Amino acid sequence: MFELQVKSKSRSELIDITAQIEKLLGEKGLEDSFVYIFCPHTTAGLVINEGHDENVSRDFIDIMNDLIPWNNNYKHLEGNSAAHIKSILTGCSLNLYYGDNKLDLGRWQRVFLAEFDGPRKRTIKIREKS
Amino acid sequence: MFELQVKSKSRSELIDITAQIEKLLGEKGLEDSFVYIFCPHTTAGLVINEGHDENVSRDFIDIMNDLIPWNNNYKHLEGNSAAHIKSILTGCSLNLYYGDNKLDLGRWQRVFLAEFDGPRKRTIKIREKS
Amino acid sequence: MFELQVKSKSRSELIDITAQIEKLLGEKGLEDSFVYIFCPHTTAGLVINEGHDENVSRDFIDIMNDLIPWNNNYKHLEGNSAAHIKSILTGCSLNLYYGDNKLDLGRWQRVFLAEFDGPRKRTIKIREKS
Repeated sequence: MFELQVKSKSRSELIDITAQIEKLLGEKGLEDSFVYIFCPHTTAGLVINEGHDENVSRDFIDIMNDLIPWNNNYKHLEGNSAAHIKSILTGCSLNLYYGDNKLDLGRWQRVFLAEFDGPRKRTIKIREKS
Repeated sequence: MFELQVKSKSRSELIDITAQIEKLLGEKGLEDSFVYIFCPHTTAGLVINEGHDENVSRDFIDIMNDLIPWNNNYKHLEGNSAAHIKSILTGCSLNLYYGDNKLDLGRWQRVFLAEFDGPRKRTIKIREKS
Repeated sequence: MFELQVKSKSRSELIDITAQIEKLLGEKGLEDSFVYIFCPHTTAGLVINEGHDENVSRDFIDIMNDLIPWNNNYKHLEGNSAAHIKSILTGCSLNLYYGDNKLDLGRWQRVFLAEFDGPRKRTIKIREKS
């Protein structure tokens, strides 16, 4: 099991972690196999989408803030219910194929940590699946 | 393949099934391996999130009801389109690592059956992935 | 690795690809195993839900259009931010068990390509997981 450390800078943002994952898997000498990527946090998630234009990530964050407002008479008293809800909707794990020293993604796809309650230090767990 | 029976009590609720899953896997003698958890229903789902304060689950259910109202001039005539839509958005399968007699979850994470059209009896399928 | 070609006809629609996947896996001679289904596109996704009444799919598409409107002062200038956002929320991969010449789905479940920026030709990748 490998771990990746990611530091977010805003309350809500998508952070492209594709290069970090590929670098780590390369260093560990992984060859063709499935990898399991897991976010053990309840106010963050993992998503895949277009990484060429950062505005796509911004539009995603904006819509999520519109649909799930930070202040909304939530019952959970810690004040971050919106982040928990967004995390449920994005999900916290990904399965990807790794071969030829890279993740098998579509041309425009990148892997993102979805931060919904930052800034924080986050840990991502990665496991090889034979 | 193992099966878990879960009984919901409300139309919409998150039911923490973590202990039930771990008990079953322990009884079956599973050791370190990935497990695949599958919900074969179209008006329920599986999610992972914070299980310490039940209000987080309530806030999630409330927001989902706001965004996807039960009555909304749906074309589907059985009256439960909202439940189908919520089920699509949460998803119906999870992959988790099981080791040391427990699911490898983050400190605050629990596994929930997301009921969107209860009360009903639900079946969850669990498979070991070598 | 197998590939499936799917042609969408509208901007937004769910296309039932269950039979196409099962036919392909049958032709390849697959026996009991997990399959990994991956959509390498950033404006489409993969979902599982009820396939008996097509109105469920229409209700899903309608709600998604209400929540994430096509025109919304998005920052991404290509005009299809709504499709990217919907793709993030549905996700782009599925893990399913295949045995007895069919996908192990619930009675009412079917596998759909979720098109959000069609009409287009889409490619779905399928891998056997031992």
